[in-house]
Amino acid sequence: MLTIDGMQYSNWSQKIFKQMREGDLDCVHVTIAYHETCLEALRNIVHWNRLFEQHSDLLCKVQSAADVLSAREQGKTGVVFGFQNCSPIEDDYSLVEVFHALGVRFMQLSYNNQSLLATGCYEEDDPGITRFGRQIIREMNRMGMVIDMSHSAELSTLEAIEFSERPIAITHANPAFFHPARRNKSDTVLKALGESGGMLGFSLYPFHLRNGSDCTLEDFCRMVGDTAEMVGIDHIGIGSDLCQDQPDSVVNWMRNGRWSKDTDYGEGSASNAGWPAQPDWFGNSTDYRNIVAGLENAGFSSDHIEKVMGKNWMSFFEKSFGPM
Amino acid sequence: MLTIDGMQYSNWSQKIFKQMREGDLDCVHVTIAYHETCLEALRNIVHWNRLFEQHSDLLCKVQSAADVLSAREQGKTGVVFGFQNCSPIEDDYSLVEVFHALGVRFMQLSYNNQSLLATGCYEEDDPGITRFGRQIIREMNRMGMVIDMSHSAELSTLEAIEFSERPIAITHANPAFFHPARRNKSDTVLKALGESGGMLGFSLYPFHLRNGSDCTLEDFCRMVGDTAEMVGIDHIGIGSDLCQDQPDSVVNWMRNGRWSKDTDYGEGSASNAGWPAQPDWFGNSTDYRNIVAGLENAGFSSDHIEKVMGKNWMSFFEKSFGPM
Repeated sequence: MLTIDGMQYSNWSQKIFKQMREGDLDCVHVTIAYHETCLEALRNIVHWNRLFEQHSDLLCKVQSAADVLSAREQGKTGVVFGFQNCSPIEDDYSLVEVFHALGVRFMQLSYNNQSLLATGCYEEDDPGITRFGRQIIREMNRMGMVIDMSHSAELSTLEAIEFSERPIAITHANPAFFHPARRNKSDTVLKALGESGGMLGFSLYPFHLRNGSDCTLEDFCRMVGDTAEMVGIDHIGIGSDLCQDQPDSVVNWMRNGRWSKDTDYGEGSASNAGWPAQPDWFGNSTDYRNIVAGLENAGFSSDHIEKVMGKNWMSFFEKSFGPM
Repeated sequence: MLTIDGMQYSNWSQKIFKQMREGDLDCVHVTIAYHETCLEALRNIVHWNRLFEQHSDLLCKVQSAADVLSAREQGKTGVVFGFQNCSPIEDDYSLVEVFHALGVRFMQLSYNNQSLLATGCYEEDDPGITRFGRQIIREMNRMGMVIDMSHSAELSTLEAIEFSERPIAITHANPAFFHPARRNKSDTVLKALGESGGMLGFSLYPFHLRNGSDCTLEDFCRMVGDTAEMVGIDHIGIGSDLCQDQPDSVVNWMRNGRWSKDTDYGEGSASNAGWPAQPDWFGNSTDYRNIVAGLENAGFSSDHIEKVMGKNWMSFFEKSFGPM
């Protein structure tokens, strides 16, 4: 079964890459920048170039849907680059083209805060897409870089769907009807996403799950079914948000970047500042089979399971990664 | 008479520095960055270090109110650094302290667009000060860097006044009641500014003037009087926005930076894309005397003229440029 994960951000190692192979993961969108500047993001790309070289038996770089099939044929896991913030393009629209050439295929218009393009879900008010944001949406559309609104606020997300001429993605979030976290998405957003041909990747990050780390596989699979009814079976996939083996310093960087002198705890709290424990049925890339089993038990057809586990992302990549 | 200009951005040359001396200009706040990154702004500071060295007979650097008096005693024009955007601090609150140490005493929280801190007056919607913006206001307050909202939108400006523990400035803009340009300020903003102990610098940039380049000195001085009645004679000064000898490429940079693939004409238009002509009574730094004469003719007392021409800025510098 074609297996594609719409977002991971792990502390990459041979152990993890081997787990990806053991889990038959054909492709994963990996985050290569949160708050990095252009130069810092370039250095992260260079770091990945070294990983591809060192682990060429396990990995290859993916820039197109065809590359995913090639990875699968070679028994490797294809890696797609993405940014969880627009900081790498700084204030320069022309850097979209540069990063696309280097393989970046997803970019969030904001992380949790206001960006130069859009508003993050932790701001009090959301005025929608900015003037610069409209320029960037057009440029991302032109090049074939997917607009990802996983961390953005409601109006910004709805306007991104409206202003973009191509379908957008929410690579890693869940419906708010399942668990009303600030990062999860309203029915309004989900319906607009599905109607526009976009994709939602279901998150396995405990703060996005009902009952957190204790979320049951049954509840998760019921959510998948309920969402399929709302947005359509063709517009959902996995976007695990798996942050494996990361030290707490990394979640601190994700939340605070360089912007806050006070410590911001994001989805956590002062007494619960570190990484949450993963649900016991999804701890690493060998566990996609548990989700498949869960969906089978929940009564999904094999056709629908294939769509959720990878075919929908594949169709989305086919229409999204090339020039318009 | 102590003469201070709250903002100029000219194509600096010996000719201009000599005109400043001829016009007995004791101090000028100069813009050293619009859309520059941290490194680019550092290079602009380095460029000014060379100008101070090369023109040490005419200029000196000002970092405190005492430095202004020292410049005056030496018969030089003191120069205060400022940013018209927050781009030089990028996403890093700790750069406020760095740039303060290098002499930067004013920073706009936004230029015309949405910034990471606040909203510019050309955006459709203005959600006010962002999360990062609140951190930066506190840090600017701590160090003694003046919050300048000359180009910011209404709510962002009101919130900056509210959130800042120290008075803020609008270094170069006029009241909208005089001329309803997007860059000019509402009665609400002006009253809040005055009540909080802030300063307004009157602009001589034609797009901010009634009848543009044909604005009469009489109309300008009447506006000064009307504003004094509204906000108090102690809260107004000159902030000429003089952009002398600049090529049209510079106004294009100010308006477009690197953010827009389309050409943005700002306050101009496709058919009027370049710099507007200055009013004939204010073309360079020898012309402050014309404003003094105009205020005399308009019936201002000598005490009030001294306040408008420099004493108010001096008082503001005294309370603003040091640590809290």
